[in-house]
Amino acid sequence: MNKKLQVCLTPALLPLYDIEKFIVVIIDIFRATTSICYGIENGAQAIIPVSQVEECAAYRDVDSTYLLAAERDGEVVPGFDFGNSPFSYTADNVAGKTIVLTTTNGTHALHLSRNAKKIVIGSFLNLTALCNWLNNQQENILLVCSGWKNNFNLEDTLFAGAVTEQLKNGAFRPDDPAIAANDLYNIAKHDLDTYLKKTSHSERLKALGIERDIAFCLQVDTTTAIPVLDGDMLVKL
Amino acid sequence: MNKKLQVCLTPALLPLYDIEKFIVVIIDIFRATTSICYGIENGAQAIIPVSQVEECAAYRDVDSTYLLAAERDGEVVPGFDFGNSPFSYTADNVAGKTIVLTTTNGTHALHLSRNAKKIVIGSFLNLTALCNWLNNQQENILLVCSGWKNNFNLEDTLFAGAVTEQLKNGAFRPDDPAIAANDLYNIAKHDLDTYLKKTSHSERLKALGIERDIAFCLQVDTTTAIPVLDGDMLVKL
Repeated sequence: MNKKLQVCLTPALLPLYDIEKFIVVIIDIFRATTSICYGIENGAQAIIPVSQVEECAAYRDVDSTYLLAAERDGEVVPGFDFGNSPFSYTADNVAGKTIVLTTTNGTHALHLSRNAKKIVIGSFLNLTALCNWLNNQQENILLVCSGWKNNFNLEDTLFAGAVTEQLKNGAFRPDDPAIAANDLYNIAKHDLDTYLKKTSHSERLKALGIERDIAFCLQVDTTTAIPVLDGDMLVKL
Repeated sequence: MNKKLQVCLTPALLPLYDIEKFIVVIIDIFRATTSICYGIENGAQAIIPVSQVEECAAYRDVDSTYLLAAERDGEVVPGFDFGNSPFSYTADNVAGKTIVLTTTNGTHALHLSRNAKKIVIGSFLNLTALCNWLNNQQENILLVCSGWKNNFNLEDTLFAGAVTEQLKNGAFRPDDPAIAANDLYNIAKHDLDTYLKKTSHSERLKALGIERDIAFCLQVDTTTAIPVLDGDMLVKL
């Protein structure tokens, strides 16, 4: 019980943590970190997360082969190759490519965590592969939920609870948010989709016509790649 | 489903809300809001919440009959009449008296909420009386968990879930944190004390030797007074 397992429920709470003492897992289930896991699994050479849309656009001049992906408020920003729908991150689209990505919540959380010992990316797609790796680390772990515009959301919290479930082996000491996330996951785990239907974010995403994306994002253990931040690029660990 | 029922999980998230559009319920179960409810029930004339210990001490010169209560990190600050243990707020001690109170978390949340339409105080002691009153209000409601040093804690969240349970009557639209809090409450409600034993805060309070206070704070519906902020004083509604 020496290692800490903590859950930061929204990026607004990150200043409360000594981030440099943790391995950080960034979580943005709908849809950024799911798409990052899927893209890296499908052979993307690297994904460069950036905070601003303008910053993303500027990469066009750096290398014209880069794919530029920008999402705001759940939609592709006009003029960009794609947003953060996982269906854009197929092997056909991304194998061998470098993608520059900015999203409403996920890349924000990632940038606020940049002083961590290490930053990896989690989603239901790579859940068990990620947990197996985390279990072997001799460091404190902080699961960072990207949330929605700096506030709490259920889908990211449920994923934090799923990770906590797999790390409840005596080696880690969960904090209150991890305990809560784990209890919520155990309520929801048999049918994540139905559980999430009662949330506000689900309504918001449904209004955007992306139920197909939601179902994709709730698939468990369909990939094994763990994206890790290396300099300013996410690459395969 | 027109009125909002939202839960702010920590005071650090208060800037995300248009606080002036809500009736706010301040929650600090261990122990500030429990003691405030108990003190007002027991005939305290008023409780003046202040942010700083020095501010509290300065009231000695305002009126020598005031009782001065100051708590930091779970302990009575030396030189003060008492801290925030509910056992200090008996009728013998507080009837007819005005108390000036500063605490680690609860008074902080209260001051950050001061632009709300109205501020009332909740605890398990006055749960049903509070919910009956809230049900009759034609306003949006924000339940503000004081948390621990700006981060999430379970006991305040469970209480927010208990309030949500009583307001799930179709008139209110709960947000994601309210849904989560309500699900956690439904796991814990049959034995709040046992549920909370697994939390970090429970360990911290136990180390302070205040298990008796904890048991007191988890009593449900033992009082009916609703403390409300009137100017800079909490008085009986």
